[in-house]
Amino acid sequence: MISHNERAPLGASLPWTQVLDSLKLSAEGLIPAIAQQHDSGEVLMMAWMNREALEETLRTGRVCYWSRSRGTLWRKGESSGQVQQLKEARLDCDGDTLLLLVDQSGPACHTGRKSCFYNAIRGDRVEVVSETLVHPVKLYGR
Amino acid sequence: MISHNERAPLGASLPWTQVLDSLKLSAEGLIPAIAQQHDSGEVLMMAWMNREALEETLRTGRVCYWSRSRGTLWRKGESSGQVQQLKEARLDCDGDTLLLLVDQSGPACHTGRKSCFYNAIRGDRVEVVSETLVHPVKLYGR
Repeated sequence: MISHNERAPLGASLPWTQVLDSLKLSAEGLIPAIAQQHDSGEVLMMAWMNREALEETLRTGRVCYWSRSRGTLWRKGESSGQVQQLKEARLDCDGDTLLLLVDQSGPACHTGRKSCFYNAIRGDRVEVVSETLVHPVKLYGR
Repeated sequence: MISHNERAPLGASLPWTQVLDSLKLSAEGLIPAIAQQHDSGEVLMMAWMNREALEETLRTGRVCYWSRSRGTLWRKGESSGQVQQLKEARLDCDGDTLLLLVDQSGPACHTGRKSCFYNAIRGDRVEVVSETLVHPVKLYGR
């Protein structure tokens, strides 16, 4: 369905409910979602959504993922208070990945760093390239 | 292994070969890789790498993915000429996603748009929000 937009001009559109019904989910019913800070462009994290998480996110404007490790909906910030407000959700050309433009309150990463992508592969080392903004103890009490 | 960087200060590092051996790959031996234009911050696409694709990318500086549909290494731009030069590869906190900072030659998307994320979910419609830079016929001859 989303392929109908491939050669469509700027501003053309399709009905969301039909696109949603034809999304290419994984065997587990999941789709990867990349969160990007809407104004700075910083890529914050990548997590997964099922259909319920995506629908809740679009309905409430607060980002909700599916936690694969816990097997539950994961309202980002429910433990840490570091919520993500959705500015816009986008789908890629083949409808199997989401890009979420968000406004991240404080750090996105459980380590207290703004972004989860703080490990740079440089030569034969993997180097920490961003600082902790908030100590994890302050986020999670441990 | 990558978790050793969680509470490490800026500039701390780990040996890449040990991190590589402990990466959390999917059951198919793959890891998702997000490509971001290094200077503008635009998120271009998301694709998958196996260990061989990642090692080739780091060795050559030209981004190589694993094509799940074709079951082969996919040297980005081999058909279209729209290559990605790697500026830096980063790993997330739990070592299961890559962020590639790249210099994308022309459009990243097979539709001829700069980014694959050109479908914005707005209300009950999915709207095309970016223009085609190059007609796909010019990229692929069809």
